[in-house]
Amino acid sequence: MSNTVLSMSMSVDGFIAGPHDGPGNGLGDGGHRLHEWCIGPTDTTRHGAADRLTGADRQVMDELLATGAVLVGRRTFELSGGWGGDHHDGVPIVVVSRQEPDAALRWPAVTYLGDVTSAVRAAKDAAAGKDVLVHGALTARLALAAGVLDELQIHLVPVLLGRGRRLFDAMPPDRHELELVHALDGAGVQHLRYRVRPAGRPLHGSDDEEDR
Amino acid sequence: MSNTVLSMSMSVDGFIAGPHDGPGNGLGDGGHRLHEWCIGPTDTTRHGAADRLTGADRQVMDELLATGAVLVGRRTFELSGGWGGDHHDGVPIVVVSRQEPDAALRWPAVTYLGDVTSAVRAAKDAAAGKDVLVHGALTARLALAAGVLDELQIHLVPVLLGRGRRLFDAMPPDRHELELVHALDGAGVQHLRYRVRPAGRPLHGSDDEEDR
Repeated sequence: MSNTVLSMSMSVDGFIAGPHDGPGNGLGDGGHRLHEWCIGPTDTTRHGAADRLTGADRQVMDELLATGAVLVGRRTFELSGGWGGDHHDGVPIVVVSRQEPDAALRWPAVTYLGDVTSAVRAAKDAAAGKDVLVHGALTARLALAAGVLDELQIHLVPVLLGRGRRLFDAMPPDRHELELVHALDGAGVQHLRYRVRPAGRPLHGSDDEEDR
Repeated sequence: MSNTVLSMSMSVDGFIAGPHDGPGNGLGDGGHRLHEWCIGPTDTTRHGAADRLTGADRQVMDELLATGAVLVGRRTFELSGGWGGDHHDGVPIVVVSRQEPDAALRWPAVTYLGDVTSAVRAAKDAAAGKDVLVHGALTARLALAAGVLDELQIHLVPVLLGRGRRLFDAMPPDRHELELVHALDGAGVQHLRYRVRPAGRPLHGSDDEEDR
């Protein structure tokens, strides 16, 4: 079964980018710190660093690279230069956007869809049974609210950034119960994988009792 | 050596209380969910639930109850009714407050001090070599900013509350590096203990290289 899996590196205080993120500064001021576990201490070592991953970090990266499609918000897609149209292995990329795409951001593998539910459906179809990698805070919120986000893979980095862009901000007021699938200790990062519990299907005994 | 240890239950999206927290609703709407791991599904089972803790939950609770003093912000102290002047075992309680205390909130074990650095010093003296338990988001921020918070013990609860009161909000813009001391899996909660890295003393190789 194909699952949508949000993958984001996050500080202990909840930030996924430093302040002033934008074109040319996609990770925000100091936000590179959140990605050292996978891309190394400097951007220039990116590919070398990803290749040298070991243990849990390697396992998690391999899982991400085994996904069969990418679902991403327009903002994250643009800040990443659309990954040149190829996030990994040429898998289909579905961009959630209500605007027409710029000519510079059109590639054969990239599809634009205006609502998150249609985008998730298209991405799951395109993934052909594999998982769908989800990127972007706003897209995560929309997918959560629409009930189409299956899992969260949070790479929790032991730092307090103090400010920046939060993963969970201006959320709809619904409570979402999670189930910890596993917690893996990497090198300077913890990989916390959660399953989003479908609404109305409590897992805990305590909630069962309240529901009676 | 006596350490100051912040202990807070927090949702994956960073909240320590639900919305509308205040007198008579100290945990905020739905905020009780964050404390089920230690006080059970309903408040009325509080003491029974704490007694039945096992494994990592028991270990963490025993560590908290072995602290020799409590440092708390005035707001948290008031919302908790000052614990009747006895948080646990009658250990000294130091309240960070610039205001004169209400007559109703004066007990022999309770001291009020106006600045967090003096309050930490007094609490450590009072703890006589044991750790100091720190409660409250604002007090945590003040202590972090003043460089007098030694450790964070976050009880991470697998739920997205969506809204409420954050542990880390309106922080000073300083970055604080942490070091994961341990991650313990409890029943429906993860206990993440971090050491706050003193400013200017990098632990990671990557930072060491940058400093050269």
